[in-house]
Amino acid sequence: MRLVGFKEFTRVEDAVNKLLSYVNVSLDVIELPINESLNYVCAEEVRAPYDIPPFDRSAVDGYAVKALSTTSASPFNPIYFKVLGTVEAGDDISNLRPVGEYDAYLVFTGARIPQGADAVVPVEDTVSGDGEVRILRPVPPYANISRRGEDFKEGDVILNVGVQIKPWHIAALASANISKVRVYRKVRVSIINTGSELVELGSELSSGKVVNSTKFLIESYLKMINVEPVVLGIVPDDLEVIRGTVISALNNSDIVIITGGTSVGGKDLVPEAVEGIEGSIKVFHGVAMRPGRTTGAYVVKGKPVLIVSGLPVACLVALEVFLKPLVSHLNKTEEVPKPTISGYLTRKLANEVGFKSFYRVSICRNSNGDYYIEPLRLTGSGILSTLIRGNGILVIPENVEGYEAGERVTAEVINPIPECDDSKIT
Amino acid sequence: MRLVGFKEFTRVEDAVNKLLSYVNVSLDVIELPINESLNYVCAEEVRAPYDIPPFDRSAVDGYAVKALSTTSASPFNPIYFKVLGTVEAGDDISNLRPVGEYDAYLVFTGARIPQGADAVVPVEDTVSGDGEVRILRPVPPYANISRRGEDFKEGDVILNVGVQIKPWHIAALASANISKVRVYRKVRVSIINTGSELVELGSELSSGKVVNSTKFLIESYLKMINVEPVVLGIVPDDLEVIRGTVISALNNSDIVIITGGTSVGGKDLVPEAVEGIEGSIKVFHGVAMRPGRTTGAYVVKGKPVLIVSGLPVACLVALEVFLKPLVSHLNKTEEVPKPTISGYLTRKLANEVGFKSFYRVSICRNSNGDYYIEPLRLTGSGILSTLIRGNGILVIPENVEGYEAGERVTAEVINPIPECDDSKIT
Repeated sequence: MRLVGFKEFTRVEDAVNKLLSYVNVSLDVIELPINESLNYVCAEEVRAPYDIPPFDRSAVDGYAVKALSTTSASPFNPIYFKVLGTVEAGDDISNLRPVGEYDAYLVFTGARIPQGADAVVPVEDTVSGDGEVRILRPVPPYANISRRGEDFKEGDVILNVGVQIKPWHIAALASANISKVRVYRKVRVSIINTGSELVELGSELSSGKVVNSTKFLIESYLKMINVEPVVLGIVPDDLEVIRGTVISALNNSDIVIITGGTSVGGKDLVPEAVEGIEGSIKVFHGVAMRPGRTTGAYVVKGKPVLIVSGLPVACLVALEVFLKPLVSHLNKTEEVPKPTISGYLTRKLANEVGFKSFYRVSICRNSNGDYYIEPLRLTGSGILSTLIRGNGILVIPENVEGYEAGERVTAEVINPIPECDDSKIT
Repeated sequence: MRLVGFKEFTRVEDAVNKLLSYVNVSLDVIELPINESLNYVCAEEVRAPYDIPPFDRSAVDGYAVKALSTTSASPFNPIYFKVLGTVEAGDDISNLRPVGEYDAYLVFTGARIPQGADAVVPVEDTVSGDGEVRILRPVPPYANISRRGEDFKEGDVILNVGVQIKPWHIAALASANISKVRVYRKVRVSIINTGSELVELGSELSSGKVVNSTKFLIESYLKMINVEPVVLGIVPDDLEVIRGTVISALNNSDIVIITGGTSVGGKDLVPEAVEGIEGSIKVFHGVAMRPGRTTGAYVVKGKPVLIVSGLPVACLVALEVFLKPLVSHLNKTEEVPKPTISGYLTRKLANEVGFKSFYRVSICRNSNGDYYIEPLRLTGSGILSTLIRGNGILVIPENVEGYEAGERVTAEVINPIPECDDSKIT
């Protein structure tokens, strides 16, 4: 039995960087119809095949004219223009008579601008009559015209490798008449749970047993960050079985997460199982963070194997700290910052210097729009309710001893923020 | 022809509140396996059926003892305890001999605490020998024990009506051995596009035609906010056809979005088509916001019909301003705040007072960790590239004339934030 505690804890940032430096996974590229590509990461450079918009078009309903002819127009000095016709969005204008000095076409939003016109006077600034229109205000050249290529010029980059595809990217591809896009297939992450206390959801709970809830936490977390979970579930406490399961998981996925068995105690079969795999490299075991300090990581032939606590809060922190950067790394993408809020801490919070700490907090908004951040009293890594009764995470860096009551701090928001019960704020 | 401009623009907040006050839609409740319930909104109150954890358990690997017996322990004065046995996670302890004054059990993380013990000394603070263990540090009562019911007591609320289900909620349901949850079915939103310039993706683009890209914008936006899109696509410019399509969409969905035809010009069949539907109530048409001021809303028998611009940026703003609150309202839920960043504005930005404005900005982070926010020059509501080359939206309220260069402002983040090219910052 190896009954010794952790000798040292790797700094979070060092652990992440070291892990990323060992990883060597390349994701297959697949081609998807653009309307199925949301949240995938683009794997090619896409350029506009033509100018977008493909022609000058009116941005309003109004009269297309020569701007110079409107220079002296005012409500007291309306200028008369002859209306040559109407152009609707979608109309072909190639056979229309060009616009002369005091000619106008009634044009609708999206319509092509007839030859000779270089501005559109909005209908609000006109009075229309029998075959003519009075212009009440001057317009500068190109007023109310969306110019050809102003959105994208032919050859402009619309999408780049590493861009996570959002609705606006899909719309831009559509406007370029591009119907498919090459993306990286989703990262696949296997979930393996160890722990002789674990039983499957729906089992009868006999003495000492608990439901394997961490499997569900990880599975749904993976879905939340657009990763494909491969749920392998509970494996028995048998070195060979664990090792075999990890090897098979490595063959079928890009990253393996194993819960449980992370303490350095007598029953820790997991590190031993992973160490025994050919080509396995230990990256770290023990991280200077709370919760989650028992997190470990190995790399086998470039694929990461994360060993995380089976306790839900410690597990979630490990996913945030290690899995998310791994997934972004594999996807060659960057993350959008998380939603955060700045507010006043309601009570002093002490930190164990040298550890990066993730405190669960309860944030509320008072009637003035100020936010108050209350650290929750219960801090155990098994206390899932802190993520449900609370609505935020306050991260305290390694070199900070803590924060005073009333200090302004910034917390990440994970659930909606209610109004403060003002009677409770001190 | 009704060639008149908008007479008035409803304030954004008033428009939203008026719209919500007219809405009367109730969503069916469905039952889902918990691992399929991510992002759905809970439709029932769920309480813990038993204490969680269901028993006192060890939070570490260590020795379960009576805390009082360790009071004088130190590395210089170790206290000897007799080791009665080992308890692993999942073991039944009902037949174990109770812990006496100087008795101990070796317990592993997650293991039940044997009768008589009230604290666990971590292995790091012990030296184990032949059937005995030396305790080097004292522990207070309940040290390193996760107590029965400390996460949820029997009867505690785990989930409430209106909670959007996140991974931690699913894990909590699993830990309560609850395998199904009642949620609201997804909100269904129909998308109808009008505009004689529109052609389907993949068509040959003849003169004056453009691809119906707004359909893709809305469809993927709906998926992004966990709403089910019903894509009806382009309808011809025919009053009866438009009206018939809207009526059918109202029968098959909770909300209808129609793009195009939103200006008050001669070709505006859409408002006329919707007004002619039995029971149709006009809520507003014309909103004091830029872009998106031509947005309109009707309600037909409690179901909202949004008329939004076919121009992508104006459309997106209308979705953010009107559709998102509608969806939250139908789901009886609250939104988590959006990701935002505070930074220094790089140049003066003037606002048309009376209008709420949504400026696209480009945010970067300099080497000191400060953020700089650069308003993009192109502001047209058709300029999709501003959402791609830029990465944020800066909202200026109606009563603000603008911001000065160097002023600190807060922008919403929609794409990742790059490092600043420091040579470009003035």
